[in-house]
Amino acid sequence: MRVTAQEIIEFAHRYDPQDFHTDPAKAADTQFGGLIASGWMTCGMMMRMYSEHYLTHNASLASPGIDELRWLEPVRPDDVLSTRVTIVEARRSASKPDRGLVRSKIEVLNQHDRVVLSMLAMNLIGCRTPAAA
Amino acid sequence: MRVTAQEIIEFAHRYDPQDFHTDPAKAADTQFGGLIASGWMTCGMMMRMYSEHYLTHNASLASPGIDELRWLEPVRPDDVLSTRVTIVEARRSASKPDRGLVRSKIEVLNQHDRVVLSMLAMNLIGCRTPAAA
Repeated sequence: MRVTAQEIIEFAHRYDPQDFHTDPAKAADTQFGGLIASGWMTCGMMMRMYSEHYLTHNASLASPGIDELRWLEPVRPDDVLSTRVTIVEARRSASKPDRGLVRSKIEVLNQHDRVVLSMLAMNLIGCRTPAAA
Repeated sequence: MRVTAQEIIEFAHRYDPQDFHTDPAKAADTQFGGLIASGWMTCGMMMRMYSEHYLTHNASLASPGIDELRWLEPVRPDDVLSTRVTIVEARRSASKPDRGLVRSKIEVLNQHDRVVLSMLAMNLIGCRTPAAA
């Protein structure tokens, strides 16, 4: 999934209007040396890949939250991002046995195979069969 | 900050294309009973309020990450969101004394004063004066 300067600037004007996200000239004078994507846009791009290639093939019932969200490297125009999901834990809900809780480590990598974003996600997923009594 | 169905649908088409975020008719048949905002859009709306009313008055040097991000209640069209920030810890960086690390609890509330989103954020902020040697 390719990052464009246009998307970085559009997202930032709406949701994260800091100079290093909205203004290439001012961004050049910051510690980042140029335009970088809002960390929340990188989360959005992760979610796009996660929902298209993973969640929609399951029975997603939404997510209670995320732990240890880390922005590890800047994301810049023309970076190409991919997402890697590692299942950490999967257990059936005790209170609602038609669903389970899946904990996943989600990493977003750039074209240099550097991890730019990582997080631990919780997802509620519908189960094929109810638990045995 | 008012939530609109149009913004929910536009954001979801780009970043979180699940039925309960993109399609009011299909959303009505889900556990949510109607369209709800992507949790990542709520993060974006938080960031807009946080950057306009807080960060730009300081010397933000970006954020290493977020802990304990929780989506606690659905966000729906016509909800009006506000943000509450509570400083948890502020300390000067040992390795780079021109900046400090500020840990904040950030909560997004709706018009019924219900907390719909909470997180613990870390921010690197420039300091007015360098630390004494």
